[in-house]
Amino acid sequence: MVSPLLLSTATLLFTLDLIGTFVFALSGAAAGVKNKLDPFGVGVLAFVAGNAGGVTRDLLIGAVPPAAIKDWRYVAVSLLAGGVTFLWYQSIRRFRPIVLLLDAAGLGLFAVSGTQKALAFGVNPFVAALLGMLTGIGGGVLRDLLVNEIPVVLRADLYALAALGGAGVVVGGHLLHWPPTATTIAGATLCFGMRLVAIRRGWNLPPANPAGLIVR
Amino acid sequence: MVSPLLLSTATLLFTLDLIGTFVFALSGAAAGVKNKLDPFGVGVLAFVAGNAGGVTRDLLIGAVPPAAIKDWRYVAVSLLAGGVTFLWYQSIRRFRPIVLLLDAAGLGLFAVSGTQKALAFGVNPFVAALLGMLTGIGGGVLRDLLVNEIPVVLRADLYALAALGGAGVVVGGHLLHWPPTATTIAGATLCFGMRLVAIRRGWNLPPANPAGLIVR
Amino acid sequence: MVSPLLLSTATLLFTLDLIGTFVFALSGAAAGVKNKLDPFGVGVLAFVAGNAGGVTRDLLIGAVPPAAIKDWRYVAVSLLAGGVTFLWYQSIRRFRPIVLLLDAAGLGLFAVSGTQKALAFGVNPFVAALLGMLTGIGGGVLRDLLVNEIPVVLRADLYALAALGGAGVVVGGHLLHWPPTATTIAGATLCFGMRLVAIRRGWNLPPANPAGLIVR
Repeated sequence: MVSPLLLSTATLLFTLDLIGTFVFALSGAAAGVKNKLDPFGVGVLAFVAGNAGGVTRDLLIGAVPPAAIKDWRYVAVSLLAGGVTFLWYQSIRRFRPIVLLLDAAGLGLFAVSGTQKALAFGVNPFVAALLGMLTGIGGGVLRDLLVNEIPVVLRADLYALAALGGAGVVVGGHLLHWPPTATTIAGATLCFGMRLVAIRRGWNLPPANPAGLIVR
Repeated sequence: MVSPLLLSTATLLFTLDLIGTFVFALSGAAAGVKNKLDPFGVGVLAFVAGNAGGVTRDLLIGAVPPAAIKDWRYVAVSLLAGGVTFLWYQSIRRFRPIVLLLDAAGLGLFAVSGTQKALAFGVNPFVAALLGMLTGIGGGVLRDLLVNEIPVVLRADLYALAALGGAGVVVGGHLLHWPPTATTIAGATLCFGMRLVAIRRGWNLPPANPAGLIVR
Repeated sequence: MVSPLLLSTATLLFTLDLIGTFVFALSGAAAGVKNKLDPFGVGVLAFVAGNAGGVTRDLLIGAVPPAAIKDWRYVAVSLLAGGVTFLWYQSIRRFRPIVLLLDAAGLGLFAVSGTQKALAFGVNPFVAALLGMLTGIGGGVLRDLLVNEIPVVLRADLYALAALGGAGVVVGGHLLHWPPTATTIAGATLCFGMRLVAIRRGWNLPPANPAGLIVR
C-alpha cells in the first residue's frame, strides 16, 4: 500500500513544479508580447520558457519522452500563462514584484528538482549539479534566443549562481547521505534567498573585462 | 505477404515527405544565400529548414535515431535543394508563387504526418497535436535563428495556426476512431487551404499589443 | 586480458579529445568575455563551445547520456578553459596564433572521432560523414548563436569543408575496409592541413551571391 503521506508529498512536488512552469511561462509570454508576436508566437515562447530547461535535462539524461511531453498539464499551464499574459499584459507588469518573487521560487524549485532527477538517473554528482542549474536557467536562455537577445541569465543578478548554489546543496547532501527532503528544502531556500537579496541590493558578479584585469 | 496497395501507400507518403523536405530546404537555402553564406552554410541551412522540425519531434518522442539521420535520402534532397538555390537563386525567386504553394503543401503534410507519428508513439493526443505543429514550424524557427532573426513563423500569416488546425483534425479523428487515411487527407487539406487563403488575403492574427488592450 | 597497447591507444584518444574540448572551450569563453558576460556566462559558453557538437551528435545517434554528461572531465576541462580565459583574456589574445593552431587540430580530431562514433552506431556512411562535420562545427555554431551572431563557421575559411574532408577520409577508408587507425590519422591530418593553409592564405569558398551568378 502506498503511504498517504508519500502520495501527498509527490502531489505537492508536482504541484510546485507546475507552479514553477507557470511562472517561467509568464516571463516567456511577456517577452513575446514585448516583441509583438501573434498569439501563437506568445504561446510558443511561454512553453519554451516554462519547459526548455527540463526538456533539455531529460534529453541529456535519457529520460525520454520528457515529462513536459508525457504529461499534458505542463503544456496546459504554459498556454494558460500565455493567454493570461496576452490579454492582461499591463496588469501583469504592475504585479512585477510578485512575479519576480515567484520567479525566484521557481528557480529554486527547478534547480533542486532537476538535480534530484539527474542523481536518480545515475549522473555523476558534479555534473548533476550543473544539470540542476541548466534546469533552472535553460528556459530563460532559449526564450531570449528566440527573441534575438543575448540571454540575460548569462549576465545578471546572480541568476545562474543562485541556481548552482541550490543544486550544490542537494549534491552535497547526497554525497553525505543526508535525508533528501531536508537538503531539497535547504537548497531551494538558499537559491530563493540569494535571488531575493541579489534583486533587492542589485548584486551582480563582476562582468568579464575584455581590456584585461584592472588592479584596484 | 505485404499488400501491394499498402506498399504503394507507404511509398507515396515517403515520397510526399521527401518533397516537403525539399521545399522547406529551399526556404533555408534561400535564407543562406540572402545572408551571403558560403556553399556549406547554405547546405547547413537547407538541411536545418527541411529537417529540424521532424528531428526535434523524434528526439522528444524517443524515436532515435531520427528518420532524417537514419535515411540518407533526407540529407540528399536537402543538399540538392541547397545546390539548386545556390546556383539559381534569381530564377527560384521568380517562381516564388509556386514555392509558396509547395511550402503550404509541405506544411500541411508535415503537420499531419508529425501528429500521426506522435500518436503512434503513445503521446497524449493534446500534446500530439502540438508536436505535429512543431514538426511543421520547427525547421523555419531554427532557420531564422541561425541567420539571427526573430522566427517569422512566430508572427505571420496564420502559419502556426494552419499547422495546428491540420494536426487538430488528425487528433480529432483519432479520438473518434475515424479512418486515419481520411482524417490525414482532411487535415493536410485544411492546413494547405488556410495558408493559401491567408497568403492571398494577407490574413494575420492580431499581434500582441504591449500597450494593453485597445477598446474599439 | 586487455592489451596494454590497446589501453594506451584509448587513453591517447581520450586525452586528445579532452585537449580538443579545452581548445574549443577557450574560443567559447573568449566570446563570452568579449560580450562582457559574468563568470557564469563565460563558463556556460566555454562548455557549449567545447561540447555542443559532440552532445548533439550523441543525441542524434542515440548515445544517451552523451559522453560530455557521463564523464565529469569534459565539464572540468571546459570550466578550466573558462576560468583561464576570464582571468587572462589579454594574454590568450597574444597567443592567438597558437590558439588557432590548436583549434585546427581540435577540428580535425573532432571530425574524425565524431565520424568513427557515428559509424560504430550503425549510421549510414554518407550521414556519418555529415555527423563528423557536425561534431567539429556544432560547438562554434551554438557559441555564436548565444552571443547573437550569425555563426562564423557557416561563412569562413573552409572551416566546415575542412571538417567534412577529414570525415570523408574516414568514411572512404571504412567503405574500402582500410585499417581505421591509418584513415583516422590521415583524416585528421587532412582537416588540420586544410585549415592551416586556408588561414595562412585567407582562402574562402566564394559566398553566395544574392544578385545572381556573375559571368567572369
